[in-house]
Amino acid sequence: MTPQALAAQVIARDPRAIARAITWVDDGRPGAAALLGALYPRAGHAYLVGITGPPGAGKSTLVDQLIAGWRGDGRRVAVVAVDPTSPFTGGALLGDRVRMQRHAGDAGVFIRSLATRGHLGGVGQSAADAAVVFDAAGFDLEVIETVGVGQDEVEIVRTADVSIVVLAPGAGDDVQAMKAGVMEIADLFVVNKADHEGVDRTIASIEASLSLQDSPPGAWRPPVLRSTATTGLGVPELRTGIEHFRAHTADALGERRRSRLAIRVREALSRQLLAWVESSRNAGCDFETVLDAVERRELDPRAAAARLLAQVLQRR
Amino acid sequence: MTPQALAAQVIARDPRAIARAITWVDDGRPGAAALLGALYPRAGHAYLVGITGPPGAGKSTLVDQLIAGWRGDGRRVAVVAVDPTSPFTGGALLGDRVRMQRHAGDAGVFIRSLATRGHLGGVGQSAADAAVVFDAAGFDLEVIETVGVGQDEVEIVRTADVSIVVLAPGAGDDVQAMKAGVMEIADLFVVNKADHEGVDRTIASIEASLSLQDSPPGAWRPPVLRSTATTGLGVPELRTGIEHFRAHTADALGERRRSRLAIRVREALSRQLLAWVESSRNAGCDFETVLDAVERRELDPRAAAARLLAQVLQRR
Repeated sequence: MTPQALAAQVIARDPRAIARAITWVDDGRPGAAALLGALYPRAGHAYLVGITGPPGAGKSTLVDQLIAGWRGDGRRVAVVAVDPTSPFTGGALLGDRVRMQRHAGDAGVFIRSLATRGHLGGVGQSAADAAVVFDAAGFDLEVIETVGVGQDEVEIVRTADVSIVVLAPGAGDDVQAMKAGVMEIADLFVVNKADHEGVDRTIASIEASLSLQDSPPGAWRPPVLRSTATTGLGVPELRTGIEHFRAHTADALGERRRSRLAIRVREALSRQLLAWVESSRNAGCDFETVLDAVERRELDPRAAAARLLAQVLQRR
Repeated sequence: MTPQALAAQVIARDPRAIARAITWVDDGRPGAAALLGALYPRAGHAYLVGITGPPGAGKSTLVDQLIAGWRGDGRRVAVVAVDPTSPFTGGALLGDRVRMQRHAGDAGVFIRSLATRGHLGGVGQSAADAAVVFDAAGFDLEVIETVGVGQDEVEIVRTADVSIVVLAPGAGDDVQAMKAGVMEIADLFVVNKADHEGVDRTIASIEASLSLQDSPPGAWRPPVLRSTATTGLGVPELRTGIEHFRAHTADALGERRRSRLAIRVREALSRQLLAWVESSRNAGCDFETVLDAVERRELDPRAAAARLLAQVLQRR
């Protein structure tokens, strides 16, 4: 199938075409770039919801409940779940996916895990590309769910229009362990499993952390909500919180999306330039020769890069 | 002070010059690139030990004990501790640093935390640059300590000659939560706090994970050691384990370092090219104009990057 034909079927909202398009994108098939190029003009309407948090916080159950609520409003929802591919975690996370399968027969819901394959930087790229596919397929809301509290999650969640961090009670250590940037990117916090002990202390610990942050007057102050995803308690309030944030940031959304697009363009440019530099067809701009000099300690890596760049800019 | 003068003092092993050089590098001062260029030819002799693991596993205490042992052998040791700068974690981690201060009066030991400032990619860069400074200053061993089990830690630990993952008993969840690549990069595992309950189960869980991995005949099989860092129990065995790994991989070390250098050169090239493309001096290769077209959905990010690259390659 040609990328253009597949794109037409995705835009016509054919579920099998959507599934196939995500596979093309996640596998980095040769036609993926053309497919995304054909879909991109039709995207830009969906609202992207990023959800992250440590394993065991109940994210998938919470997403399941959010979907049910949104479906009740007649909105179409796609979920991209970013799973580590380590054989050591695959099993548990597949279990999470299964929990969401009650929506399996509903054409207004599409749930997809990305393989990610441990490629550095590849996860964020696949997630952003999948978001374009779902967007072009007319989904109103897209959830990007990641596991963890590291810099790679920050990177992925930055793809979203709203970022939600989910914690479980007793997660004091998790708050402590959060990397630079994770607390700072959250637009909403949810302490899930609110029926467990320690929920008040965890909320207080997040609130205390937030009070250390400087924020200009009129800035959004991330609320700290509580939920019990297993029973649905607190989920309507979370949906309302998301709508409040969406309304509060409506004016700034264009700016947020533009800086996101700038990141995508920079990443693509880096990848394409490196591919060009390392391609053997471009003799005279020889990556391996320069690397030899670095290995002999005649050139340091920065100077080597400057030499390669000068070669690139002099040619053609 | 000129970068050349500072480099000369670093090579002469002046502790205050070393401290200043790390600050230049970590802050990205204008002279940092020239400083590193001057130090780079003198580096390449130190053995780099990467240590990572979840918060609370006892990494700093273990490093403290390793230092004591290495000092007993007369070896000079430098430690680079990569701390998240989030205000939410700074306190606890500074506490860890204080624990290592018993070596403060020993000129053969240098311990330094990096600020990292939440810059994406910046952490690994600063750690690699700090390693060059210490290496040129004649340290025999360099420890790079990171907190966490995410992809950013994988990235940093890939800077090392040997990678050690430290876990505490009952860390079944941590093993589960480990991201793609983290289990795979470990050359040695240490289950610390071996006096706590659950140590055998944690070791068994790691061993079970390892048995799932394919490894060619003759390949290094990561041992799973146990230690009680507070008393020093198991620390000599860890040092021996590191030496065994070093001997086992002596032939492959050159290759490992070369691929590391290739990563450094690629990263530097990406940064320099992006700076060039975005520089306002290079009119005709206008990042903002192309970004406008992406925002209007006339171009997708890949096509935009391809257009910018074509502009770059056609000029000069």
